[in-house]
Amino acid sequence: MSSDNKTCTVTFLPHDRKILAEKGTSLIRVAMDAGIHINASCGGEGVCGKCRIQTENGELADGITERLDAEDIAKGYRLACRAQISEDVTIRIPVESTVDSAILDVKPPPRCTAAVQHMDINSLKEQGLFLNPIKKTYLELPPPSVSDNLPDVGRLIRSLRDKADWHKLELTIPVIRRLPDILRNNDFKVTATLVRPVRDNGKTRIINIQGGDTSSENYAIAIDVGTTTVYGQLIDLSTGKVLGEKGLFNGQISYGEDIISRIVVAEKQGGLEKLQQVIIQTINEILEDIFTNTGVDRNNVSTITIAGNTTMMQLMLAINPAHIRRSPYVPASSLYPPFQASSIGINANEHAIALLYPLISSYVGGDIVAGIMGSGLYRSEELTLYMDIGTNAEIVIGNKDWMACAACSAGPAFEGGGVEFGMRAAKGAIEDFLIDPVTYEPMIITIGNVRPKGICGSGLITMLAVMYEMQIIDSSGKFNREKGSERIRKRNDVWEYVIAWQEETQIDRDIALTEVDIDNLIRAKAAIYSGCMTLMDEVGLSIDMIEHITLAGGFGSYIDLEKAMTIGLLPETDPERVTYLGNGSLLGARMSSLTNRIRKDVVEVTKKMTNFELSETPSYMDNYVAAMFIPHTEVDKFPRVKERMESRKKN
Amino acid sequence: MSSDNKTCTVTFLPHDRKILAEKGTSLIRVAMDAGIHINASCGGEGVCGKCRIQTENGELADGITERLDAEDIAKGYRLACRAQISEDVTIRIPVESTVDSAILDVKPPPRCTAAVQHMDINSLKEQGLFLNPIKKTYLELPPPSVSDNLPDVGRLIRSLRDKADWHKLELTIPVIRRLPDILRNNDFKVTATLVRPVRDNGKTRIINIQGGDTSSENYAIAIDVGTTTVYGQLIDLSTGKVLGEKGLFNGQISYGEDIISRIVVAEKQGGLEKLQQVIIQTINEILEDIFTNTGVDRNNVSTITIAGNTTMMQLMLAINPAHIRRSPYVPASSLYPPFQASSIGINANEHAIALLYPLISSYVGGDIVAGIMGSGLYRSEELTLYMDIGTNAEIVIGNKDWMACAACSAGPAFEGGGVEFGMRAAKGAIEDFLIDPVTYEPMIITIGNVRPKGICGSGLITMLAVMYEMQIIDSSGKFNREKGSERIRKRNDVWEYVIAWQEETQIDRDIALTEVDIDNLIRAKAAIYSGCMTLMDEVGLSIDMIEHITLAGGFGSYIDLEKAMTIGLLPETDPERVTYLGNGSLLGARMSSLTNRIRKDVVEVTKKMTNFELSETPSYMDNYVAAMFIPHTEVDKFPRVKERMESRKKN
Repeated sequence: MSSDNKTCTVTFLPHDRKILAEKGTSLIRVAMDAGIHINASCGGEGVCGKCRIQTENGELADGITERLDAEDIAKGYRLACRAQISEDVTIRIPVESTVDSAILDVKPPPRCTAAVQHMDINSLKEQGLFLNPIKKTYLELPPPSVSDNLPDVGRLIRSLRDKADWHKLELTIPVIRRLPDILRNNDFKVTATLVRPVRDNGKTRIINIQGGDTSSENYAIAIDVGTTTVYGQLIDLSTGKVLGEKGLFNGQISYGEDIISRIVVAEKQGGLEKLQQVIIQTINEILEDIFTNTGVDRNNVSTITIAGNTTMMQLMLAINPAHIRRSPYVPASSLYPPFQASSIGINANEHAIALLYPLISSYVGGDIVAGIMGSGLYRSEELTLYMDIGTNAEIVIGNKDWMACAACSAGPAFEGGGVEFGMRAAKGAIEDFLIDPVTYEPMIITIGNVRPKGICGSGLITMLAVMYEMQIIDSSGKFNREKGSERIRKRNDVWEYVIAWQEETQIDRDIALTEVDIDNLIRAKAAIYSGCMTLMDEVGLSIDMIEHITLAGGFGSYIDLEKAMTIGLLPETDPERVTYLGNGSLLGARMSSLTNRIRKDVVEVTKKMTNFELSETPSYMDNYVAAMFIPHTEVDKFPRVKERMESRKKN
Repeated sequence: MSSDNKTCTVTFLPHDRKILAEKGTSLIRVAMDAGIHINASCGGEGVCGKCRIQTENGELADGITERLDAEDIAKGYRLACRAQISEDVTIRIPVESTVDSAILDVKPPPRCTAAVQHMDINSLKEQGLFLNPIKKTYLELPPPSVSDNLPDVGRLIRSLRDKADWHKLELTIPVIRRLPDILRNNDFKVTATLVRPVRDNGKTRIINIQGGDTSSENYAIAIDVGTTTVYGQLIDLSTGKVLGEKGLFNGQISYGEDIISRIVVAEKQGGLEKLQQVIIQTINEILEDIFTNTGVDRNNVSTITIAGNTTMMQLMLAINPAHIRRSPYVPASSLYPPFQASSIGINANEHAIALLYPLISSYVGGDIVAGIMGSGLYRSEELTLYMDIGTNAEIVIGNKDWMACAACSAGPAFEGGGVEFGMRAAKGAIEDFLIDPVTYEPMIITIGNVRPKGICGSGLITMLAVMYEMQIIDSSGKFNREKGSERIRKRNDVWEYVIAWQEETQIDRDIALTEVDIDNLIRAKAAIYSGCMTLMDEVGLSIDMIEHITLAGGFGSYIDLEKAMTIGLLPETDPERVTYLGNGSLLGARMSSLTNRIRKDVVEVTKKMTNFELSETPSYMDNYVAAMFIPHTEVDKFPRVKERMESRKKN
């Protein structure tokens, strides 16, 4: 173990554990990630003063608050949540009682998140995949004369053909309409915006004409339309770089949180038109924000690539989604032709084309196909399990040769729905959690390091895993009534664990996790796990044959993989094999904006993807019931969890 | 000479001329067509009473009015304009003085109009040219089930592929939008409207979907947008038949009569938008009339094929036409892509596609190209001279291998402009005319057989030719001041011939033709003739090499060919070689509606057509000046006229 300029060694006592940490990291985060408990109740705000630790060698930056008096400070006491690593340091953590070191050793495994998979434009270029769909070409046309009085369009086309081997050119009426004046107002020096054909032998379309040389201002928009959130990115097509980005809640949320309730609204008189209007408004607000912040002229945006689930796309296009929610779950179309973005109300120049990702089925939408394209799964030799986890979980298994996909309804528990103090991943959400194995006192970290307001998805997963490993709850999610802690209590006839006392919170109430909450979380993880297992059964695979797992979705970047495996949300596998893609839908939309190759390949990809309707697959329910335990009825499927729990029982 | 059931022999005395005439024809028309003069001033209304004739053998139907007393009637007197042929009959025409039969013999040649060329759908079919661009296919789709839950679009496409070899199908967003509900509201029994590709290997587009079986209701609209008039036709695509037709004045007329004045208006603030709105309104009024009168549902019209001159098309599409009227006369485009008809305000179903005829140049527009396609010139072996005569005259020379074209501004004289009593071919217009060689009394027939209001184009041509042959005017168009007739007079310092006295007219004024009028007519005919000659010079041809002349244009069906040659409007040729096409633009639009073959061929045809800008060709002005005589400076170019005039001088 060594330290360099950026990395320091932090030694924790009495555990005598040495951890490498980057300079500037808060001490409490280092301890949490290592699975070392420090009492901490205020989320990192520094007000509870519980996270006192003592420096024995070396110094911490900061960590001094009014909670510590001069004597404490002189003795090396600091607040772990306010202190940052600045050099090699040895830290002693006060323990309330003599702690058996054996107990310290059976801590849950250290925090382990997935490697984030980034998009690599250079790699795209090297693979010959960077075929920019939009080309802007600057032209200086010879002005017409008596001996050369070709029509304006013919003159433009002749110059384009002279300049490059553009054949099969076609124009739109709006371009022809503007051409005569633009040519003459700019001394016949203009920039033509060309859409390269996706297929060989396709036509090149001239979709815009601008005066002067605007060839360097060539932009695209990528949009992910999610049920809950909508993200947009502005992409510079010359460099492939993202110049601006914005996410907003989908304005449709006030019409219902999930897809089904949106469809119900759409089926009412005027509902579909209203929902379309609202989603377009959200998209327009995102565009407005991006254009304002980047200073880019929206008239230089030529494509708007949109990925979204099947229902969102039908609502956006004002296509009745009623048949999506009823067996046999039939969407309107799997492919949508390119269309004028402004025709559905998107606030874009009239030349801008909207491109929609194709989809597989009513519940495996264009967002998933985009993720498959964005992740590169479709080009991969490795047998990959792709999971996009949200209210609905979509699962794809396969590689470049074949793919199977399915969707299951997990419910909103991991997004904070159906959990009393559940909340979205926002400031004040408890995102990380540990329990003192002796006192059952919690250690919490919140997003933004402020006093807690609730618990977000990754916090819930971690909490469930930690409580199970600490045997505070059993494998059916019931509290161990024998644990002597005031934090484990019965209120309104429901058992619960108090994570933060009223005075430590922002909400003036005790924040607790109840057995009802836990039951909902188990149902959600069981649905997702059952989805994976059922799909694997259908294609005749077992988990050990999976070479790679890709996690996608807003929920996922911060998820502790070992803990997700502990509770049986993910199949147990080597965390090294797991990568996190982030918003796969947005990534795929962005990649399509950058290269025609993806737009060409995607149609073949959708043909390769076999959809399984889990609701029509009898084994899905059996798998679901079997997964209604932590980690699972058959604990042999989770050998690492089994081993840890057995080792813990021995102590 | 024999008569059958439909045809009778009419013998005119004292000429002793026998004429075959169809039963029901008015006697005055028979005489006029034969070049036999009967005094007649009221246009055929029967009020002037001048056209008294006497039946000597046989009987006429009708012809008896209050202008004849019982004694007259008993003697066989009738009014020629009110009498119809019903059996073989001998007629004596009263002559005021003893007429030298030699004079009677040097009458102008009998009326001779061009054979009308009709469109022959069966011939199209036999030639394999009848490839209907729009196919409506009735489908009974299997409803979706759990084992077959293909998206609606995929289901539709699968059925289309099963039913016929439709490959490369594509849909529009509006069709996809309506598909889910239409399928389910009609038990999955629907009719798809398909646009067949123009090119081999092109895509077939599904542009509409309707519940139930509407496959037999498959219609198209053909429109000719002229500067003066707009014509529309409703075509049944199953039979090729025209079900309804309507012509209206172009509403833009109130913004200027000719193309140049429209362009001037369009260049003013808001002018272009206004002119577009007005022409669309005219088109919509025509459609409204046609749909109302035929009872056809406009939602079953899938294509609207439009032909028009370059300026009309740019105005219709709101494309600035300013550069059309300025050298080097550059139009916006020679080809326009198909577009949604409703996008420019045409009151059609949203699926209906507007198809515009391609054009050659600023003054040889899509109307002429349509005529070339409609007339079959582009498939003909015969070297053909195609002339579309209006305010502008467009001329095409060529055959299936090559074509040259040009346009010249004739001015509005033949349409009644710049001629004091000129008028369009409407009720009350003098359309035919003859002069008594001795008394110089006129014989007139008006459109609608009512009292005259003015003179239309064919009337003016005939008048000019007759006056020239009767030596009332000389070859420079000046009146022979020596003729002793009160009808030839000087008024306001201008010589004129009075065709109808005030009391015989509807307008309470003497109707006359003045030297100024004649001068304008000579300028117009000289421009047209010079256009023909210059174009022939440019391509190295002489008139005797022309195998066929095709006349097109609103002006033309009634034109007396010999008289048009007499005044040197048309080159002198065998009238048998001349055919009249009628509205070639509308015919071409109709043919394109019926067959993709034309739509495919037309692009090649436009490439074959070489445009000559006459205004930039020096010899045009020389030819023009040489043509400023009747028939021409070089009378040898008109041997038949020369011969008649010489024979007349001998008498």
